[in-house]
Amino acid sequence: MHRPMASNLYQSLADEMADAIRSGRLPVGTRLPSLRGLATQRSLSLNTVIAAYRQLEDAGLVLPRPKAGFVVSPRLPEPTQSLRQAPSPPTAPAQHAMMARVLAAQQQADIVDLAFAGPRGKRFYPGAQLARTTAQVLRRAATTVETYARPNGAARLLTQIVQRGPRLGLHTTTERLVLTHGAMEALQLALRVVTQPGDAVAIEAPSYFNIYPLLRSLGLRAIELPTHPRDGLDLDALEALLAAGGIAAIMAMPTVHNPLGGSMPVPNKQRLAALVNHYQVPLIEDAVYAELQFKEPLEPLAKSFDRDGWIMVCSGFSKTLAPDYRIGWLDGGRFAADIQLLKFHSSGAESRLLGDAVAAFLEAGNYEHHLRGLRRLYSDQVSHVRGLIAQHFPTGTSATQPTGGFLLWVELPPAIDVGELFEQALAEGVVFMPGQVYSRGARYRHCLRLSCCQELDERFAGAIATVGRLASALQTRAGG
Amino acid sequence: MHRPMASNLYQSLADEMADAIRSGRLPVGTRLPSLRGLATQRSLSLNTVIAAYRQLEDAGLVLPRPKAGFVVSPRLPEPTQSLRQAPSPPTAPAQHAMMARVLAAQQQADIVDLAFAGPRGKRFYPGAQLARTTAQVLRRAATTVETYARPNGAARLLTQIVQRGPRLGLHTTTERLVLTHGAMEALQLALRVVTQPGDAVAIEAPSYFNIYPLLRSLGLRAIELPTHPRDGLDLDALEALLAAGGIAAIMAMPTVHNPLGGSMPVPNKQRLAALVNHYQVPLIEDAVYAELQFKEPLEPLAKSFDRDGWIMVCSGFSKTLAPDYRIGWLDGGRFAADIQLLKFHSSGAESRLLGDAVAAFLEAGNYEHHLRGLRRLYSDQVSHVRGLIAQHFPTGTSATQPTGGFLLWVELPPAIDVGELFEQALAEGVVFMPGQVYSRGARYRHCLRLSCCQELDERFAGAIATVGRLASALQTRAGG
Repeated sequence: MHRPMASNLYQSLADEMADAIRSGRLPVGTRLPSLRGLATQRSLSLNTVIAAYRQLEDAGLVLPRPKAGFVVSPRLPEPTQSLRQAPSPPTAPAQHAMMARVLAAQQQADIVDLAFAGPRGKRFYPGAQLARTTAQVLRRAATTVETYARPNGAARLLTQIVQRGPRLGLHTTTERLVLTHGAMEALQLALRVVTQPGDAVAIEAPSYFNIYPLLRSLGLRAIELPTHPRDGLDLDALEALLAAGGIAAIMAMPTVHNPLGGSMPVPNKQRLAALVNHYQVPLIEDAVYAELQFKEPLEPLAKSFDRDGWIMVCSGFSKTLAPDYRIGWLDGGRFAADIQLLKFHSSGAESRLLGDAVAAFLEAGNYEHHLRGLRRLYSDQVSHVRGLIAQHFPTGTSATQPTGGFLLWVELPPAIDVGELFEQALAEGVVFMPGQVYSRGARYRHCLRLSCCQELDERFAGAIATVGRLASALQTRAGG
Repeated sequence: MHRPMASNLYQSLADEMADAIRSGRLPVGTRLPSLRGLATQRSLSLNTVIAAYRQLEDAGLVLPRPKAGFVVSPRLPEPTQSLRQAPSPPTAPAQHAMMARVLAAQQQADIVDLAFAGPRGKRFYPGAQLARTTAQVLRRAATTVETYARPNGAARLLTQIVQRGPRLGLHTTTERLVLTHGAMEALQLALRVVTQPGDAVAIEAPSYFNIYPLLRSLGLRAIELPTHPRDGLDLDALEALLAAGGIAAIMAMPTVHNPLGGSMPVPNKQRLAALVNHYQVPLIEDAVYAELQFKEPLEPLAKSFDRDGWIMVCSGFSKTLAPDYRIGWLDGGRFAADIQLLKFHSSGAESRLLGDAVAAFLEAGNYEHHLRGLRRLYSDQVSHVRGLIAQHFPTGTSATQPTGGFLLWVELPPAIDVGELFEQALAEGVVFMPGQVYSRGARYRHCLRLSCCQELDERFAGAIATVGRLASALQTRAGG
């Protein structure tokens, strides 16, 4: 991957050719003009054309061919239907066992981990800078390590979160916020504060895999609603369910969905907020990737259309800044006071040292710059991986076109059993997230999720090629 | 408070006089020999006699009287009965409201906080040293802040916990352990892994106040068992309950109980372990103060007599070393594998940076020395506060004689309503833990808990005197 050059010439050339490829004017397999030929024809420097072709390659639109220059890549369609198929019987134990299998696989030495949704590598986190900031906080206030933080967490960081909120349409106060142990604990507390064991909770299908064991461990029933890769949660289905009654809470990820990567259009968010306020059913909005939207200005959270505090927001700094610090936050809306007590008797406050360190980083004003870099980087990485998938995976594969973040959801031809693919890939040293963990049933047994948050080096590309080769063989065996 | 002098002379003089006072040979109100007189009589230096008298004063055995030297303090009896009275109807909302009241009071400016069980002050935590160690860990491995820790926490710290275990009779492995967000999260996870909503859990009365809202939020029913200030949980009552069946788990604090301060005798711990193994009902053993036992060698945990892994141990470093780092740990016994998954989908791993920092402190070998100092210090502090209570509280007051830690449980004459006392004390700028939060019912409405983990300066002594004066007035009003 390269950084953009100062000149804009290569960019407009790349954009022009990308349009031609996407529109079909340059069909799959077309040989691109030679570097020298195009440079002469357009009166551009050779370096400019090279940069433009590299960008097309990074975006997965063209492939280098030995001695033949570049050709237009195979196309990777995007799924255009809600991914829900016929409801399947709940097979929670199988889902549980699969998840344990993934966790164990991730601990293996020398594994190429395409499953883990945690960036790895210096380019994704300002680790050294954050370490320096933390050391400064330690020096200036060694006493912060000598007592417990107040129950809702470091005031300094709460203030920063309030100040940043409007970027996502969030207008909140420090009193409504509590720091949590990662966004995961925020989800857990938000669920516990509005549900009783035995209650039904409406969730998206697919949903973040940890939602399922969390609901199960709290004695809650999951009702899965169809969720479209671009439009998000099916609001007609949700409204029907709310009108029928009996739903204690809704969990959704309207902005940069995990695993789908899409964002609900803003008018849909408005309708979602209106629905939960009308029916007075709490919505737990997971916004953990919302700051990693590729396009600016960022689209607002559903929370920005909340009227009476029925929407709780769960987010944090693990995906963007400080994964090891485990600092999440929860805007509890109308439930904020009870959430603070619940946090206190569930796990106590978050570390003041770590909260102050993140606050100091934010106060120094470097976070926005860092986020802008990440948005470009992940946009490039996701495009590049889509290109690799198009190149290596069997015909009939589709992959989502994320609006942010670093996750890709891949649908293989339906004859392929991803459980089998998982075991074969593991035997070759590659682990990915199998679709089975994203639903209670067998709904996504031909799907998988890939994380694009590490260096896209040869090792990574080789791992994608391996999974693609194995999938193709399974497809062939199935007579596809 | 002073540090022991090199000489042993003052110590043997103090011990001799303490014996005479405790046995009654020197009755309450007796005037002690003058300093000069005793020095001459025993051929000791004046400083030695002063040091001995100071120690007696610190231990709450004697009081200075203006122009009259020292007199023997009023005696404070220890409660000798299990504190359980007739069962009262569950009044959980009142308990909940009281707890919210305490938390709010603790946030008030200029409050003297006798409620908070977190040491405050440089003498109780090696804060500066820990900050330096943390800075070293940051410098040597800035990359640790760049990725998530493995699900069960920093391996380096798990190894240290395993190595320290035998001091408390705990023989464990890193595979059985998981780091948690404070011991509080350890209790929460241990409960969740072995219970279903609706289950009944046997607990001690009184129990750590956070147990009650925790059980309630998980939909669990609390069955309170009588608990003796010296002997601990009533094992006959427990056995009857286990034989009757229907108990999903037991929570107990056999070593340095909160709030009582006592430790179950070792043979009782053996019987407790045998009972839970026989009936195959999990025991959640809270050991958070176990390393602060006053006497060495430390008495072993009930876990040390576990046979088949039915006992889980919850502990951490918040009371002894690093409150802000919020590092607890959980030995999951036979449930360890499920606990690791539960931790993963409840809140994710603990910070590797903080785990490594605590590990580095332990590896450097200073922890044992620090603990020995704390044991002496808290033993002195608790004795001193018992003395203050004897001096200021109404006749008929008793207070436990802790075997470790820094908590005192005080029983006032039964006519005193501690709810009223709480409000009056709050109006004068003092907050303590009212007995009501230690039971579902109104069982302990004449009791309170005091924390002895701050500097026992004039402000502190004044606060104790205030509570005593208010209690005496309430007692007088009640005709006592």
